[in-house]
Parts: sequence; structure tokens; C-alpha cells
Amino acid sequence: MIYLDNSATTSPKPQQVLDASARALRASANPGRSGHRMSVEAGERIYSARKTAADLFGMEDETRVIFTPGCTFSLNTAIKGIFSKGGHAVVSNLEHNAVMRPLEALRSEGVTYTAAAVYPGDDDATLDSFRRSINVNTKAIICTHASNVWGIRLPVERICALAHAYGLYMMIDAAQSAGVLPLDMKDGYDIVCAAGHKGLYGPMGTGLMLLSEKADIPPLITGGTGSGSASLIQPQELPDRFESGTLNLPGIAGLEAGISFVSAKGKENILRHEMSLVRRAYKGLSANKKVRLYTPEPDESFFAPVLSFNIEGVDSETAAAQLARRGIAVRAGLHCCPAAHRALGTLDTGAVRISPSAFTAARDIDRVIQTVRELKF
Amino acid sequence: MIYLDNSATTSPKPQQVLDASARALRASANPGRSGHRMSVEAGERIYSARKTAADLFGMEDETRVIFTPGCTFSLNTAIKGIFSKGGHAVVSNLEHNAVMRPLEALRSEGVTYTAAAVYPGDDDATLDSFRRSINVNTKAIICTHASNVWGIRLPVERICALAHAYGLYMMIDAAQSAGVLPLDMKDGYDIVCAAGHKGLYGPMGTGLMLLSEKADIPPLITGGTGSGSASLIQPQELPDRFESGTLNLPGIAGLEAGISFVSAKGKENILRHEMSLVRRAYKGLSANKKVRLYTPEPDESFFAPVLSFNIEGVDSETAAAQLARRGIAVRAGLHCCPAAHRALGTLDTGAVRISPSAFTAARDIDRVIQTVRELKF
Repeated sequence: MIYLDNSATTSPKPQQVLDASARALRASANPGRSGHRMSVEAGERIYSARKTAADLFGMEDETRVIFTPGCTFSLNTAIKGIFSKGGHAVVSNLEHNAVMRPLEALRSEGVTYTAAAVYPGDDDATLDSFRRSINVNTKAIICTHASNVWGIRLPVERICALAHAYGLYMMIDAAQSAGVLPLDMKDGYDIVCAAGHKGLYGPMGTGLMLLSEKADIPPLITGGTGSGSASLIQPQELPDRFESGTLNLPGIAGLEAGISFVSAKGKENILRHEMSLVRRAYKGLSANKKVRLYTPEPDESFFAPVLSFNIEGVDSETAAAQLARRGIAVRAGLHCCPAAHRALGTLDTGAVRISPSAFTAARDIDRVIQTVRELKF
Repeated sequence: MIYLDNSATTSPKPQQVLDASARALRASANPGRSGHRMSVEAGERIYSARKTAADLFGMEDETRVIFTPGCTFSLNTAIKGIFSKGGHAVVSNLEHNAVMRPLEALRSEGVTYTAAAVYPGDDDATLDSFRRSINVNTKAIICTHASNVWGIRLPVERICALAHAYGLYMMIDAAQSAGVLPLDMKDGYDIVCAAGHKGLYGPMGTGLMLLSEKADIPPLITGGTGSGSASLIQPQELPDRFESGTLNLPGIAGLEAGISFVSAKGKENILRHEMSLVRRAYKGLSANKKVRLYTPEPDESFFAPVLSFNIEGVDSETAAAQLARRGIAVRAGLHCCPAAHRALGTLDTGAVRISPSAFTAARDIDRVIQTVRELKF
């Protein structure tokens, strides 16, 4: 099986991720709860993972790295936290349902939002579109770092400057970009939400919420934290405020190993490798008259390594099923992201998405190009 | 190390849990998202786990088994769901902070609660106390199945009948009891929240929320579900309503193996084994003049296999540290449950808790009794 569904979850995981996760599951206790050696060691593993994550994202204060069960949880916490007293959000027109559905759910509490159009290759136009979407009630700009459907990369550094010029929170959905695109908290982002099981190569069931010194939001979940236990009020210190209940130790140990894998390879090397693969795919597929591509040739300045296409006259699910029968795993349909499909006119057909990982080889891409050429409908 | 901190998390995990979790992490894709074999197989693993959990709790409809990152998440979802439009809760005076802190957090939205006293050994008095706590605004009775500090078991079948007589939701915190005490959804409970990593022997980072046919609450987290993707409104069908984002597949695969371990051993056998151990501990410790016990000798009708004590004149943390130095892992302090400590007058000192698992042997308990006897302060 050639696995090109790494935007859903990277597979395989590096060997050290399997090892670290298995080790943590084998003989471990509840971290930070008891004073005995096993519990203390578990707490130290969590601390080490927090430090490793902080280092990858340029953070000095590791207590501002919050472990979550996934990016969707991080996004819900952040969105419901920012808008706990109402307000208006500016989002892009490429946002995932993990951003859109929480915002829609908050409508009943008076929260509103405006979706700003993104213009791939024209950052000035994109910036202008975000600027025009801000109103007096706006509290935050929330945008994806890169589209999970089209790979379109947003100029987050400039959008961040815009947000701060208006006194707004700048929040990034880094589900697709963490571990792949440059992302440094020193650049001023207030809240970054990331999946642990995609570009960071950790196990499914892990995620991060990174908070700047400025970010001050309430938690979504409260409960036992092993701290301030005599009080019925949730502790305010970090990371405890957001980490009630028992942490996913095997997952977090695996995530640390995944982040270490990324650091050892070098994010920039992984990005270069994956971009060369999607460019190779783009070139090969664009030579195929039956294939419809929706974006310009992916350039690193404007794209992340995700590429979607369709075969003329064929529903994306049908095409993906044919590829699956020939040993190629891709994802079709709407990718939980109707906004991005609406933006490029594929809401009816969906699209076939290929997304490489550090383990994908050029010959895998060549096989896809060749197989698409051979498909008959 | 003699590990007697199984109420925090069971350790070790059964070999089949390690194997199933490792297998799921080794070569897996995102469940229920794509049409290719790896994703379909991942989806089948989740379905199988759901079915296995449904069977353990006497549920016919496995779609009403919701996978969560932990019991705290389940409790928050259920509590915030039930009281999304305000109301009053009746809880016991033994509730964990995972129940109390969410209720306290909802005070600002007008939610109130009354804590009913529990009378160990006198179910009539307990029932009466719950009955007197109900008022016209009450929407639910929420109570622990068994105290995580004292092991005190609540008469949940009778409390359930009381709740239904008043038209209230009956919700159980089964963090300490799932996999240990009898718990069958056919007995009419509306919502049961359980940890996956305690008596069900799954990995940390797993939990369950079990819903009756009657239970109808909104989700706390919304986002991508791989279903109804074209809509920005969260799907209402189960389990999708409550399972946005990527599920913790390695955790859930491990949890299924843990539940199978419990089923194979027989819950009733595990309970009998563990109760014999806490009774052995109780007898041995009560023969020690320095030891203070707070409850009657634990009988299966009124207690779950958890036992807390103190050494006269010694802070619980100090005692636990001494035990840890002698190779015995217990948990001291307040166990994230000030309510239960207030109820029995140990809010200042905390208590030393021992909690066995299916893997604990009688000689482990004898070692504890002997070691406590040898401690000098």
C-alpha cells in the first residue's frame, strides 16, 4: 500500500515513536498525582515532552505548552475561551470544520464571524481581505496556516501583524503545518493549535495548544489537576488550568519522540522533501489531460505539501476507490472542510487529495501518476 | 515496587493491552475518514471496541458508547450538556473535583447544586438525604458509584429509581467502579462516565460516556466528524455528535483489549479478589494501634476495593513518602476530592490510600501491613 493520506494522520510512525509509547504504557503510573517513584517518573516524562515541544516552537516557557487530545480539542478550547463573552471573529474562507463548527455553535450566544477570502500568490490582496473583515466587535483573527485541502499557505506573519495592529488575538490552526512549515511563537502568535499525530509524527489522540504570554483564556474542561485540590475552583496557573484529568502518557511520550524525529531530520529538510514530491505530482498529473488541478504549481512560498485534484467527469470518491483498489491510499470527498471546497468550486464533487510524509519516496508519486493515467471509468 | 495506586491508574496493564495498542500504532490510518483499506480497518477496530464496551455494560446500541479522552472529559461533557440551559443538580458529599469543579464553573451561568450526605451502611438514610436535596429546578442526580477516597459505595440502583420518580436524569461517575462493581445500563442509568485506564485496564488517555436512549444532550466539542461534512452544523447522530476530531486509535484498541481482559476474568471475580485484599489490609492495619481507619470493615455491599487510612500524628504525605522509600506506591493527600475528605474530617491531613488491582497479591498487602508497623516518625 502506498500511503498518501498523511494529512489525515502520518503513517507509518517513526520507530522511536512506537518504542517510546510502548515503554510509557508498559510500566507507568499517573503523572503528577502521587509521590512514589513511578508517578514522579511519569511526571518527568511529561515535563520532558513539554520542554521538547516548547523548543520546537521557539517557546521559552514550557508551561505554556498545553497537551490536549487533539487539534479539534485545542481549537474548541481556544475559540470558546476567546469568545466566552461574545464577540466577532475573522476567519479565512479555507477553514476546517474544527474551526467553523465551534463558531457556528457559538452563534446562539451572539458570536459572529466573517470569512475573508484568501488569494494564493497575492498576499497583499489576502491581507486587504482580512483587514476589511475586521469590525468594532472583532476579538480575534483565526486562520489556518495552510489549507488541508489545497495546501494554500496563508501569510500568517503578516496577518499576525495586522491582528496586533488592531489589538486582536492572532490564533493559528496549525493542524496541517506543525512540524512542516516554519512556525515560531517568537513571531508573536497568541494561540497556536496543533495536531500531534500529523506532521509531528506522534500517536493519534494527541494535540497541542501553545499560548503566548498575552493569551489569557478560561478552560473548557475543569476537574482534578493534582494541584490546589482543596479548592473547588479550577487552578489558574499553567498548564494545570487546561489539563484536568489524567494525561495521555503513552500518547505524549510518543509525541515527544515524534517531535525529536522532526527536529533530528530538520523541519526545513522535511518541507523541502515533501514539496519536491507534490511538485513532482503536480507536473506528472498536469501532463494528464483527464486530470483537473485547481491551483498554480505549488511553490514553497505559497503552498504546503498537500495537493488535491479531480479526474474530469469522475466523482472524487469513485476515483479514490479505484486508486485504493490499486494499492494507493488517498482521501477524497470534502476533507471535513466544505469552506475550502466552496472557495474553489468543488463542493459537489469533492477532490482527491494526496499528502506525502517524510517517509514518502519519489517512486510512490510516480506510481500515483502512472496509476491515474491507467484508470478507466 | 509494590504498586497500590491503581485508583489513579492500573499498572501494569495486561499484556494484550500493550500488544493491541502497539499494533494499532504500528500501521494505522485515521478511522472513518477515508475509503482505503487502512482507514476502513481502523474504523472497524473502533467499531469492534465500541461493541465490546457496549457488551460489558449491557447496552444493545453500541452507537451510544462514546469514546472520550478520559472520565473528566466525559463528566464535563455530560454536566455542561445537562445544564446548558441552567438548573439545579443533586450530588453526593463524596464527589471528585471532576464533578465539583465543572458545577462550580457553571455557577456563573446560574447553575446551583446541593450535596447530599451519604450514610455508609444505611441506604435508607442516604436515599432520604438525596430526596430532601431535590427541588423544583433539579434536572439531574449526579453521583459517584464509589468514593475514590473511602471506597464507600452508593446505592445507585435505588438513587436511580428516585431520580426517575422525580423525572430527573440519573448520571453516574463510574471512574472508580467501571470494570469492578456491577454496572448495567439496563438498570436505567441515563449517563455513565467512566475512565478507560483504571478498572478497564486500558491506556491513560481513554474514557467512556455511556448514554441511555433517553439521554439527549448537546456536545461540548464540535468539529470534523467525517460525516455530513458539507454542513457547518454538528451532526446530531451518535456517536458522531460527541466524537469530533481524530480518535485515539492506539488508546481505544488498548481499551478494548483491557475490557476483554476484564470480561475474560469476570468482573465479579476481580471484585471478590480485590475486596478480599482490602479486607485483609483493613484487618492487618486495624491491629496496629498507630493506624487510624475511618470506615467500618469494608463489606462488598457497601464498599468498593479502595481503602484510606492515616498514621496517628503523621501527615499523609509524609507517611506515603516513607512507604515509597520502602518500595510501596500509594497515594496520599486529597486525591482531587476535598468533598470526601471534608465528609470524614481529613481535609487537613489528607489520607493514605491503597487500591489494589487484579494483579495485586495477598503478599503485597501483607508487606504493606508489615511496613506500616515498622515505620518510625
